[in-house]
Amino acid sequence: MDKPYVVGMDIGGTNSVFGIVDARGNILSVDSIKTQAYKEIDEYVNAVAEKLLPMIEEVGGKDKIKGMGIGAPNGNFYTGNIEFAPNLPWKGVIKLSELFEQRIGVPVTVTNDANAAAIGEMTYGAARGMKNFIEITLGTGVGSGIVINGQLVYGHDGFAGELGHVISRRHNGRQCGCGRCGCLETYCSATGVARTAKEKIDCTSEPSLLRDIEGEITSKDVYDAAIRGDKVAQEVFTFTGTILGEALADFIAFSAPEAIILFGGLTKAGDLIMKPTLEAMEANVLNIWKGKTKLLVSELKDSDAAVLGASALAWG
Amino acid sequence: MDKPYVVGMDIGGTNSVFGIVDARGNILSVDSIKTQAYKEIDEYVNAVAEKLLPMIEEVGGKDKIKGMGIGAPNGNFYTGNIEFAPNLPWKGVIKLSELFEQRIGVPVTVTNDANAAAIGEMTYGAARGMKNFIEITLGTGVGSGIVINGQLVYGHDGFAGELGHVISRRHNGRQCGCGRCGCLETYCSATGVARTAKEKIDCTSEPSLLRDIEGEITSKDVYDAAIRGDKVAQEVFTFTGTILGEALADFIAFSAPEAIILFGGLTKAGDLIMKPTLEAMEANVLNIWKGKTKLLVSELKDSDAAVLGASALAWG
Repeated sequence: MDKPYVVGMDIGGTNSVFGIVDARGNILSVDSIKTQAYKEIDEYVNAVAEKLLPMIEEVGGKDKIKGMGIGAPNGNFYTGNIEFAPNLPWKGVIKLSELFEQRIGVPVTVTNDANAAAIGEMTYGAARGMKNFIEITLGTGVGSGIVINGQLVYGHDGFAGELGHVISRRHNGRQCGCGRCGCLETYCSATGVARTAKEKIDCTSEPSLLRDIEGEITSKDVYDAAIRGDKVAQEVFTFTGTILGEALADFIAFSAPEAIILFGGLTKAGDLIMKPTLEAMEANVLNIWKGKTKLLVSELKDSDAAVLGASALAWG
Repeated sequence: MDKPYVVGMDIGGTNSVFGIVDARGNILSVDSIKTQAYKEIDEYVNAVAEKLLPMIEEVGGKDKIKGMGIGAPNGNFYTGNIEFAPNLPWKGVIKLSELFEQRIGVPVTVTNDANAAAIGEMTYGAARGMKNFIEITLGTGVGSGIVINGQLVYGHDGFAGELGHVISRRHNGRQCGCGRCGCLETYCSATGVARTAKEKIDCTSEPSLLRDIEGEITSKDVYDAAIRGDKVAQEVFTFTGTILGEALADFIAFSAPEAIILFGGLTKAGDLIMKPTLEAMEANVLNIWKGKTKLLVSELKDSDAAVLGASALAWG
């Protein structure tokens, strides 16, 4: 292969991680910088370049690099821009692909983080060989990447696949960061899990290990309590999985995927979350799909997933 | 063009209509038979052939026919079969495309009626030139055809796009023919409109023209009363449009379409249904899409739509 490597970069609210990846998904080298340390986008691009260009030299120079894929919050595949990302230091529309193409000298493709995860899954993970699947990312928020006929769905404007913002509860739904109420994300993100725990603690008098926690309860606290047999904590996961499974049943009616793949921190809770999710999905799905749609956990290693997913974009 | 014509056929529960269509969507000839008159599929195929073969001869024989497209309830694009259609006389799996290919002697493509409408819309109607849109059919039931990147979405198994069966009301939802409760179809089909009217009559004492109707109220009755200024009938459309608009807002989060196109009898109610639908869609859609997604009425003429839609399949 003329150009045997790609660059993958994941821009997170806290860290930006970038690495060189080969066609089999091996990460040859990886490094990172703090996203928030650069108030100006030009400084940021420079800081990445200063670490990344030597890494590229080490594998033979930019002639060996097919391209660079970037996963970023609100990243738009069509424009190559980051557009109004609430958790990044740079406001408005940032011409990300243009800036990196000029500085690094390879073709740059941008998409949002959930789409990058889906492409990574298709290229290196649980969705290898699948033409139709939906990746659901369960992190601080809930995101999604939808693949149909082997193609990532970007829609008319590049923003398709905001399944964290379908409405799970139309009445008395929880307030969402998007300004509306009842979004899936308010229940099934890590934040949603913590919120459910707090509600259960505040609104019942059931004994629970969660009552001993000082400060804010996190989803990790809920997990720790649940595996120690705490009933309230276990109910939190059942509640979360039920709402998630109900939503997945509706997603199946849309695109009839071969599989739905869950990605992100919450999946570490294993059966605690997967069992109620599968049960609710099967209980709520239309008859023709009962027992047919696979519910899988991502096979991308957490530490590598973001870079791998983004890098897979560059093979496109 | 070597083969300038296609055959379109729509198999309905009552009538089967078939015609010869040219590339501009002109229907050169059309005929029909009664679907229910043929208890055996072979007799049915024969009856169609006896009328259709002379029509084909009239335009120059089967050498002039690129193919035949069939829209049928539960028609599966991948297999060419009708599979377990509740409203047709033939039970189980019917090898429809195989039977017609043998009898008519041209390539045959099958899909369900809502997908056929979407393809017709893209080829001859309101979606000409669009690569991303969703067609919603509001008839006895609610169906959908989803187009992404210019391709109809069939999903993993050929059954994608059952948007009439996403859940609109999770609690105390109406019983649906599919066996579940709260499906969009139970509210926003013609049947759903009649059901809403009956509920409003039974559960309130408001005066209404609808109270004078003998026998079952139909959606046509509700329309007639509404345009005569009947408040209860108008509320029925507002209620229907609101639930439809809420659902459309979620569909936009999935595939970010350029437009949602409504098709079928209910759209004849005009502003009575379109206005509350658009209002609810805009009120419920995620910020990034506010004011951006077109809500359109089909431009396929009702009498021709089924044949045209099905015929468009055959150009594929």
